[in-house]
Amino acid sequence: MIKQYEIVIPEHKRGFHLITGFIEKNLKDLQGTGTVNLFLKHTSAALTINENADPDVASDMDYSIDKLVPENDPGYTHTIEGPDDMPAHMKSSLLSVSLNIPFSNGRLNLGTWQGIYLCEFRNHGGSRRIIATVHT
Amino acid sequence: MIKQYEIVIPEHKRGFHLITGFIEKNLKDLQGTGTVNLFLKHTSAALTINENADPDVASDMDYSIDKLVPENDPGYTHTIEGPDDMPAHMKSSLLSVSLNIPFSNGRLNLGTWQGIYLCEFRNHGGSRRIIATVHT
Amino acid sequence: MIKQYEIVIPEHKRGFHLITGFIEKNLKDLQGTGTVNLFLKHTSAALTINENADPDVASDMDYSIDKLVPENDPGYTHTIEGPDDMPAHMKSSLLSVSLNIPFSNGRLNLGTWQGIYLCEFRNHGGSRRIIATVHT
Repeated sequence: MIKQYEIVIPEHKRGFHLITGFIEKNLKDLQGTGTVNLFLKHTSAALTINENADPDVASDMDYSIDKLVPENDPGYTHTIEGPDDMPAHMKSSLLSVSLNIPFSNGRLNLGTWQGIYLCEFRNHGGSRRIIATVHT
Repeated sequence: MIKQYEIVIPEHKRGFHLITGFIEKNLKDLQGTGTVNLFLKHTSAALTINENADPDVASDMDYSIDKLVPENDPGYTHTIEGPDDMPAHMKSSLLSVSLNIPFSNGRLNLGTWQGIYLCEFRNHGGSRRIIATVHT
Repeated sequence: MIKQYEIVIPEHKRGFHLITGFIEKNLKDLQGTGTVNLFLKHTSAALTINENADPDVASDMDYSIDKLVPENDPGYTHTIEGPDDMPAHMKSSLLSVSLNIPFSNGRLNLGTWQGIYLCEFRNHGGSRRIIATVHT
């Protein structure tokens, strides 16, 4: 059985943001066992799973991805939308926009230390839309 | 309900190539709501979602991934298949070979600016095979 | 139809380890056609698909990811759990903890050269748990 929802995430500033609770709230009628696919309909942000306890992990991931894909690289040609744009595209592909998570007994079956992150790579990315598809 | 197809992508030169239309054509009997998994059966290419409008994004992604995983790194030991081979493996894991995309009302539910890319990391990769599994 | 299992992977040393046979053994009642989602419930390890033949590929991927996300980067603030910890988180997001694989006629439909890797990024990561969800 398939259910599909659109979830709109309000604008977040550039960086990594835990959205586990927000996603769970928007999937509140999960039942039984299956998987949910979260698909972010954007090309300059991403979804990832990571440590949910220490806020330093979020800022260190942001630091690390900025270092991997730096702004103002003279090799870029797609620069018209600003120095944060092309790096945001590359980061989006590196971390991915499509995330599958299992659920069991109606609850996301994440590890104790796992949370869902919205990775916002633009300085002013606006709100972000997710298509959540639940397979049971 | 499950449907599964093998899709053969003709040889593309090294680089990032939009294949959204090609994939849609090969999934032409999509119906209703669900997800499709596209699984590339190779270890030196990848599938990703990214910006579908400016061809410079494709070439900048290629530039960026080449910089992240350079050829002729003296640290590699798996060099017998040529300088493009080991970097191709690493790039394939970074961008992934397995991609899940939702569909709604029989159409892929991509964002306005999203397209599906074949990322070809070999100089002469040949044709590439995808297993498409549709869940409705 | 959905089946879900927890699979416990015994401790592996830091590095990339082929676990295809181990996973197949634990999914031994696969039937028909569908996909399996493998979800690793940890934030300092990952699952990926890559070349299954030459052990040098595993060591070169380990070398390459260590170079991309180095230890002892003075920019990290999350350092209390040791120098391997924060890089392990970032590597986990780069390679991902959630992997979808198609199966056909009761067998994983991998390419000839593809294998499933456990990527262990901690020096002493302990055993690792996977939730396997089979959709047919």
